[in-house]
Amino acid sequence: MTGLTWTDDDQQRYLAIRDDLTQVSTASACQLLIADGWRNTWMNRLLPIRPLGLGTRIVGRARTCRYLMQRGPQPVGQRSPDARRASPEIALIESLEPGDIFCVDALGVPTAGIIGDILSARIKARGAGAAIIHGAVRDSPYIAELGLSVFCASVHPAHSGRDLVPVDFDRPIDMAGVQVLPGDIILADDEGAIAMPLHLAEHVARVGPPKERLEIWIRDKIVAGGTVPDYYPPSADKLAEYERETGERYGH
Amino acid sequence: MTGLTWTDDDQQRYLAIRDDLTQVSTASACQLLIADGWRNTWMNRLLPIRPLGLGTRIVGRARTCRYLMQRGPQPVGQRSPDARRASPEIALIESLEPGDIFCVDALGVPTAGIIGDILSARIKARGAGAAIIHGAVRDSPYIAELGLSVFCASVHPAHSGRDLVPVDFDRPIDMAGVQVLPGDIILADDEGAIAMPLHLAEHVARVGPPKERLEIWIRDKIVAGGTVPDYYPPSADKLAEYERETGERYGH
Amino acid sequence: MTGLTWTDDDQQRYLAIRDDLTQVSTASACQLLIADGWRNTWMNRLLPIRPLGLGTRIVGRARTCRYLMQRGPQPVGQRSPDARRASPEIALIESLEPGDIFCVDALGVPTAGIIGDILSARIKARGAGAAIIHGAVRDSPYIAELGLSVFCASVHPAHSGRDLVPVDFDRPIDMAGVQVLPGDIILADDEGAIAMPLHLAEHVARVGPPKERLEIWIRDKIVAGGTVPDYYPPSADKLAEYERETGERYGH
Amino acid sequence: MTGLTWTDDDQQRYLAIRDDLTQVSTASACQLLIADGWRNTWMNRLLPIRPLGLGTRIVGRARTCRYLMQRGPQPVGQRSPDARRASPEIALIESLEPGDIFCVDALGVPTAGIIGDILSARIKARGAGAAIIHGAVRDSPYIAELGLSVFCASVHPAHSGRDLVPVDFDRPIDMAGVQVLPGDIILADDEGAIAMPLHLAEHVARVGPPKERLEIWIRDKIVAGGTVPDYYPPSADKLAEYERETGERYGH
Amino acid sequence: MTGLTWTDDDQQRYLAIRDDLTQVSTASACQLLIADGWRNTWMNRLLPIRPLGLGTRIVGRARTCRYLMQRGPQPVGQRSPDARRASPEIALIESLEPGDIFCVDALGVPTAGIIGDILSARIKARGAGAAIIHGAVRDSPYIAELGLSVFCASVHPAHSGRDLVPVDFDRPIDMAGVQVLPGDIILADDEGAIAMPLHLAEHVARVGPPKERLEIWIRDKIVAGGTVPDYYPPSADKLAEYERETGERYGH
Amino acid sequence: MTGLTWTDDDQQRYLAIRDDLTQVSTASACQLLIADGWRNTWMNRLLPIRPLGLGTRIVGRARTCRYLMQRGPQPVGQRSPDARRASPEIALIESLEPGDIFCVDALGVPTAGIIGDILSARIKARGAGAAIIHGAVRDSPYIAELGLSVFCASVHPAHSGRDLVPVDFDRPIDMAGVQVLPGDIILADDEGAIAMPLHLAEHVARVGPPKERLEIWIRDKIVAGGTVPDYYPPSADKLAEYERETGERYGH
Repeated sequence: MTGLTWTDDDQQRYLAIRDDLTQVSTASACQLLIADGWRNTWMNRLLPIRPLGLGTRIVGRARTCRYLMQRGPQPVGQRSPDARRASPEIALIESLEPGDIFCVDALGVPTAGIIGDILSARIKARGAGAAIIHGAVRDSPYIAELGLSVFCASVHPAHSGRDLVPVDFDRPIDMAGVQVLPGDIILADDEGAIAMPLHLAEHVARVGPPKERLEIWIRDKIVAGGTVPDYYPPSADKLAEYERETGERYGH
Repeated sequence: MTGLTWTDDDQQRYLAIRDDLTQVSTASACQLLIADGWRNTWMNRLLPIRPLGLGTRIVGRARTCRYLMQRGPQPVGQRSPDARRASPEIALIESLEPGDIFCVDALGVPTAGIIGDILSARIKARGAGAAIIHGAVRDSPYIAELGLSVFCASVHPAHSGRDLVPVDFDRPIDMAGVQVLPGDIILADDEGAIAMPLHLAEHVARVGPPKERLEIWIRDKIVAGGTVPDYYPPSADKLAEYERETGERYGH
Repeated sequence: MTGLTWTDDDQQRYLAIRDDLTQVSTASACQLLIADGWRNTWMNRLLPIRPLGLGTRIVGRARTCRYLMQRGPQPVGQRSPDARRASPEIALIESLEPGDIFCVDALGVPTAGIIGDILSARIKARGAGAAIIHGAVRDSPYIAELGLSVFCASVHPAHSGRDLVPVDFDRPIDMAGVQVLPGDIILADDEGAIAMPLHLAEHVARVGPPKERLEIWIRDKIVAGGTVPDYYPPSADKLAEYERETGERYGH
Repeated sequence: MTGLTWTDDDQQRYLAIRDDLTQVSTASACQLLIADGWRNTWMNRLLPIRPLGLGTRIVGRARTCRYLMQRGPQPVGQRSPDARRASPEIALIESLEPGDIFCVDALGVPTAGIIGDILSARIKARGAGAAIIHGAVRDSPYIAELGLSVFCASVHPAHSGRDLVPVDFDRPIDMAGVQVLPGDIILADDEGAIAMPLHLAEHVARVGPPKERLEIWIRDKIVAGGTVPDYYPPSADKLAEYERETGERYGH
Repeated sequence: MTGLTWTDDDQQRYLAIRDDLTQVSTASACQLLIADGWRNTWMNRLLPIRPLGLGTRIVGRARTCRYLMQRGPQPVGQRSPDARRASPEIALIESLEPGDIFCVDALGVPTAGIIGDILSARIKARGAGAAIIHGAVRDSPYIAELGLSVFCASVHPAHSGRDLVPVDFDRPIDMAGVQVLPGDIILADDEGAIAMPLHLAEHVARVGPPKERLEIWIRDKIVAGGTVPDYYPPSADKLAEYERETGERYGH
Repeated sequence: MTGLTWTDDDQQRYLAIRDDLTQVSTASACQLLIADGWRNTWMNRLLPIRPLGLGTRIVGRARTCRYLMQRGPQPVGQRSPDARRASPEIALIESLEPGDIFCVDALGVPTAGIIGDILSARIKARGAGAAIIHGAVRDSPYIAELGLSVFCASVHPAHSGRDLVPVDFDRPIDMAGVQVLPGDIILADDEGAIAMPLHLAEHVARVGPPKERLEIWIRDKIVAGGTVPDYYPPSADKLAEYERETGERYGH
């Protein structure tokens, strides 16, 4: 429950599945997880500001930050670089490692933008794979051009301090209906983003790609005139046809 | 009240108006229907995943399917092709005729996708004109590329069984604030979709195109500097000008 | 409190700042206004139907119109041109001056479109800079192609008379959480629209452009590897670096 | 469109119907108005803080006040009595006449209370019939005990200045989906409040009471075992029975 | 899927459990059903207009009716008693049997009241156990006094025809997030209403009462100073204590 | 930022103000805090299940617990007392001290009840002053009779495990728009609950009671016929009158 724990072994396991995971759509992964009883892995309506394109997927490790409502008056004057460095969202950004996914729980608040052009540029410079904001972002026209994938609920031109204040980082957060822990594996594409622990990511990386290949074969059959009762899911006959035609075995 | 009743005569009447109806925007059709006391014909915020393009319109016959919330545990194991064939949404898909519009009342539930890539591909293969989902779809990045127009309220990567179950088809349904009966005529463009019974579709097909032509003429006059009090709606003088310039008579 | 009061002096002051204001994003302007205690200047989620493009901004003078819910039955038959001319929304449209921003408070009602193709064309012909609708528009596919920037909350194919009626113009209105007075200065880009009185617009026009230039310099430093604690906001050292590199002085 | 216009003749007409109107429930009145094409007369979900009791109804004349969002910083320091006197909501309160209904359009904003204990006490002291707030009130525990009927959407302990500012009074306003004009007649009971112009109030006062009497007779028949097809609405036979039993004639 | 099927055997089974079921709170029943994988049995926020009182529960058989949005103009003039008799909601009301629960899916629409004083009186006269409306009711002040338990989402003074029209009865419906079939068993108290098929009602009637008795014993221990880890759920020791003190056996 | 820090000195300071604080309504306290720039202290719409009664106020120390969405399948079987004891919400309940306020951030989720009859009974037995749930409770009919004040957003018969899981306690949480820290001082009455740090509670306890006394005096004057411009806020004359009549000095 305290901070990010990520061992060298975790890193090895993650690297071993990363490429396989990019072969799985969020739709297929979400469905595999539900089949295992994991209902809540998709972040509701946190969508990319600019489409990634069909088939493009982002995989990375969740780094988390949490905001709460601002209580008192906004601080006046400029904070020192040291104070700035200690602020949770800055501490997190400055500790991002290549491929990390910057995940912010801003309570879904639509009235203040958590990151703008400059923080987004820094997140990109740190090598992050994406930023996902349960809330709003600002400078969205610029962010759309930046080359960093940013998922969010809405846009607002004010900065976060209008209503929110960061309270901690690398702890469990709520991302639009999903519990996300630091070190979770994120998979995202144009349908949104899902989070899962590493051991489930390994499961998805193992059973997802053959499932995707089977489904593409089914889709081709359907396009060629096959019927749903025959092919989706495939009858035993059709599964045999699949194995015959492709040389793959499925679900054994 | 029981199922789709569609006679040969209905078919003749439908074919007789189909092309005229594509000359009418949903905005013009909606307004004509309101003028006759039909307030609720537009499906609130069910919009195309990918724009059709200005002037492109879809016309077809409504085929309806209704989902309700799943109550018990999800069925385990694979259902037989016969059971699959009997499931309402599959029975409907497999009975679609060219030009039909696949209309699903999924209660607007945003947490489960009613159709994904494979069912969409089958709906297209059956020759359907469009699919309209009062709820969510999944595999939306693929669907956007498929070439079938799909209108929906939202996207979600889970399949329908996460929360919903189909209960019947070709019966009256609620499509985001519109009562839709099987056999209704659907008209859709980038502003959304409206439903109306055949006899009103005939009315719209008759009075809509001359109304569209008049409004384009008005718009051209406005672009050329005409004022709203003079041209919109046109004064008697301006209506005479219209008839003189175009050789058309309007509203006689 | 009564109508638009706009003197020659106001016009001079406005023309003197118009170009400078277009150098400021809504994000920067919104933030400057918040710093002065003006929390509510951004119209929540009134966004352009078609993107303007990064860096394109609209500046103009607010002209306001207010709708309320229709109470009784809709009037039957055609109104005379004189009655039409006297209707608040038409009176306002016909009095628009080049660069004015047509602002409509339609209570955010999503079930009726305030303007369609013809009124939009007239607003454009009058030389307006944009139309902003706290509510819905109709004929949105056409409007998207028209060349007039239209910001709104939603689309609906019905016209305003389905549910709404105009009651007055050039008086204070609510634009999605912002109090807008006739004669306010509007600044809009792809992140939405903000409203402010002329004297604050002068403030933004004065301090905004140097702030934008500084932030672009910061962003370039960040892209080149600078850290947030060093550059955002810039430490005294970095500010000196900025002044040295650019020859600009900031915040003195 | 400008302020309250209320002639001696209006006053006479109003006094002539006031008592009859209190015999009509909001449900019956609402229905009579819809039958005449007046769909929007009931203020959505503005309900009394404390129940009035079955059969208790409030009738009065609407006095209206409008708030918009606060824009700039809140004024510092105490305003002079003269400034206070000129503020729209105070000017309205101090001009209330016995039986007036204090109606405030606060945009439905739930984050600031428009009236608290002291203003409510003053409204009561002025002899007002009720206060209806499209928004929140504060000091609600006290108001519930005060003896003034207050209808509102919600409660909030902050005063109005947290987010709102009054802009004008005795002009048309939106009361939760109803257009209310100063001088409208308000009818309210535990099901909420409706607004209508004087001439429709006269209609309701004339046809409402006999309709109420007929419906009570129907209800008694139903309680005694009568069926819906026989009695509701009554068949010609049953209507004759009504007239025979009560000596009243209905709908002639 | 067609209409109510309810055999004499069903009736016997129902009578055999009815009294036991009234010993179970909706909270306990809901939890037992979730434990069996039935997530969606509670009708979201359909609450009684007037509290039933702690410990009072209603048990009955669901009779269902479905409304959809009104499409065209409202019918003018009075319908014949035969037409009225054939209308789905009237046909259902006139066929209610003692103890039935009148369940209406009105899409949750808040702008029209499904039943008022007269229909409620008739439902009561038919011996119904309760009416549950997924939508609004009218004449709520009267209904609160009537002595029929009515659960609903909101109140509105207009009758259903303002926006809705009944389409069928005794078919599957959506009750605020619950799929309800005709013949389902309803259990309701001040926390709301749940629906379940007869065989699950038998399960709840069997395991619910001993569970309630155990929980009351636990509660008493807690009130007397017992701790949560000891008593809730009870450790093996404490369960033995329960069995010793009460002579009951639990969960064997 | 870690857990509850509460020194003996804090305890002394708290005891010194507790009684004075109960003389201040949430409305007055909220307003005093806003005047100091603390906008967000009131928990939006978390209201008592059963009214406390006019003038009754609860004061206590916040103890906080946070839930997030359940991710995986619900655990099967019974947990050991040790595991139960370690669960965050149980650990917190078992560590409550007399007068503590049990504050739960359940994300406002309406589909699962955080506490029911047994946990509420235990919270009461621990001497807590109240429970406040940003989410739902179950067994609400029983809780209403229990004698513990429970504030919440809604009710639901399912227990928390249907959708939620506790993650930590005595850390900062979001309570319906308010940042609450463990050790904050809570003030609650029938208008809801506010949170503030101890030093602000001291401020409210000092300036609140004289403000309440002045406002009651004002209210009495208003009831007796005084006008708003004269008395609210009081003019210098009226303030002198207050001091003369009551012997109190105000605001010096």
